[in-house]
Amino acid sequence: MVLWPDVPAQTKIVGMPTIGVDHIREAAARIKPYAHRTAVLTSRYFDDRLGAAVFFKCENLQKVGAFKFRGACNAVMSLSDDEASRGVVTHSSGNHAQAVALAARLRGIDATIVMHNNAPAVKRRAVEDYGARIVPVEPVEHVRVAVTNEIAQHSGAVIIHPYNDPRIIAGQGTAAMELIEEIAPLDVMLAPVGGGGLLSGTSIATAALCPQADTFGTEPKGADDACRSFHGGQICPSDHPNTIADGLLTSLGDLTFAVIRRHVRDIVTVSDESIIDAMRTVWMRMKIIIEPSAAVPVAALLGGKLAVKGKRVGVILSGGNVDLDRLPWVV
Amino acid sequence: MVLWPDVPAQTKIVGMPTIGVDHIREAAARIKPYAHRTAVLTSRYFDDRLGAAVFFKCENLQKVGAFKFRGACNAVMSLSDDEASRGVVTHSSGNHAQAVALAARLRGIDATIVMHNNAPAVKRRAVEDYGARIVPVEPVEHVRVAVTNEIAQHSGAVIIHPYNDPRIIAGQGTAAMELIEEIAPLDVMLAPVGGGGLLSGTSIATAALCPQADTFGTEPKGADDACRSFHGGQICPSDHPNTIADGLLTSLGDLTFAVIRRHVRDIVTVSDESIIDAMRTVWMRMKIIIEPSAAVPVAALLGGKLAVKGKRVGVILSGGNVDLDRLPWVV
Repeated sequence: MVLWPDVPAQTKIVGMPTIGVDHIREAAARIKPYAHRTAVLTSRYFDDRLGAAVFFKCENLQKVGAFKFRGACNAVMSLSDDEASRGVVTHSSGNHAQAVALAARLRGIDATIVMHNNAPAVKRRAVEDYGARIVPVEPVEHVRVAVTNEIAQHSGAVIIHPYNDPRIIAGQGTAAMELIEEIAPLDVMLAPVGGGGLLSGTSIATAALCPQADTFGTEPKGADDACRSFHGGQICPSDHPNTIADGLLTSLGDLTFAVIRRHVRDIVTVSDESIIDAMRTVWMRMKIIIEPSAAVPVAALLGGKLAVKGKRVGVILSGGNVDLDRLPWVV
Repeated sequence: MVLWPDVPAQTKIVGMPTIGVDHIREAAARIKPYAHRTAVLTSRYFDDRLGAAVFFKCENLQKVGAFKFRGACNAVMSLSDDEASRGVVTHSSGNHAQAVALAARLRGIDATIVMHNNAPAVKRRAVEDYGARIVPVEPVEHVRVAVTNEIAQHSGAVIIHPYNDPRIIAGQGTAAMELIEEIAPLDVMLAPVGGGGLLSGTSIATAALCPQADTFGTEPKGADDACRSFHGGQICPSDHPNTIADGLLTSLGDLTFAVIRRHVRDIVTVSDESIIDAMRTVWMRMKIIIEPSAAVPVAALLGGKLAVKGKRVGVILSGGNVDLDRLPWVV
């Protein structure tokens, strides 16, 4: 199956798959029967405080509570029947795990999730509730990857990488595409960046559909590999990332780095303190639950990290999966 | 000014104003430039658990975080210029206070809010931020009413009662009207009941626009005056209401009681424990913040208090104003 024919490219790096807005359009059609078209919310409070018109794309209201379902669903629904019959495997202890598990269930195929053996019980249960099999491993990145590869080799299961995969990037880009369809024109588009799947898809969609807009990545200071890589011109992974934004601990892949270099204007960083404050402000003012990772672009706005006065700003609120018994502002 | 001309009645009680669906339609047009048309959300979790199709009308996403803005806005925007020039006054320590304050600011007129002197500072500040004047009084109902009347007599300000007022009831009915417009037909419509403004408006809209549907009121056991009044055939106020659903402490008025007797099928009660559980479940599964009062109809559904299997159910989620530092499930 040729997933990524060599169409005129938005992003074309030698030796790498081509990802363009057409792939995002195809992904949108593919996931439409399964994914929510999430609400876009506005808030007088944020508009007044920032002197801007801010449009929040609520991926916390997406299936499994995060944008991750878009990419996983696109990847799983892209498989040929032969590929699908062998099942899928991925490594994730976060939202991607649930996303792959649900997408596989919707297609009626097996899913195996390689997960750190110290992952919270609630996360394991959520994945199991979708009917996926969990393989617990030592919480060491190279072990997790090795076990995933081994399972794929033995069973023939297709690996669904959390972000460094064109099908994932195209799927994640559908959120920005919907946002632009609904409220274009925009001047600024913001997304958080961890592995870079969401930021890549967002930047491709924005560059194609709203070319006058600048896409910015926003990242926690404690896991600032994307910022360092972007400014340094080469991938510099985080050795010991440490941030409350637990969805953004991973580092860029070669594919997401290439897309981001091409389409993203800049990457700014914010402190954990400002993330918690932004998260609480969204909860209080907008009455929606967002996780720390989703609060990162909001922290960038509230902290004055970007010049948005008088502008129309799109923000991808990436997810809403938090432990309601342990809120960061409740001591 | 004749606000409620004697048109063919949905609800016509001797000596009482007539309130019909036309008044709700007028209210909808009047508040349209100011109020949000709030999102309607669905949840696979709730549908699976209940074996029903449930449509949540998210008034927690309304201005000031509650449906109360609809009624207050309709009342304030209904005033003649002469009335408006004298300002408005109301007594409330809750969402109605903020709603009147914002509506008055939008019309550019004075608002005075008579508020218990033990109301939390955060609630006082919210009202003051909208430019309203607060008159603190002893936390005794008859004192609050007396002071309100006195202010009205001296200043000529128009009293905006929190619920026992046709303009308020018509405004609150616009939420159900929007819900029905969007997802009719429905079999069951649910709303919480305190003073009865929301339930009255909801039941009038439902009876007129979705006549095959039954409207149910849902009430905390610790403030069950509406249930007792409904079944006893006369108003029986709660003496010492005690419930976590702090928006539902008030008792029915004569006008709301008359509407509810006519259009509501039944009123069911739920425990505070089940309210907290329902609130947490909505937060966790739907990623939206609702206050305890809004969780009351959800508690009725989850507790099996109503036969909804195979049915299409509308639920008015009334508001989302909670103290994020003191969540009821965090010990």
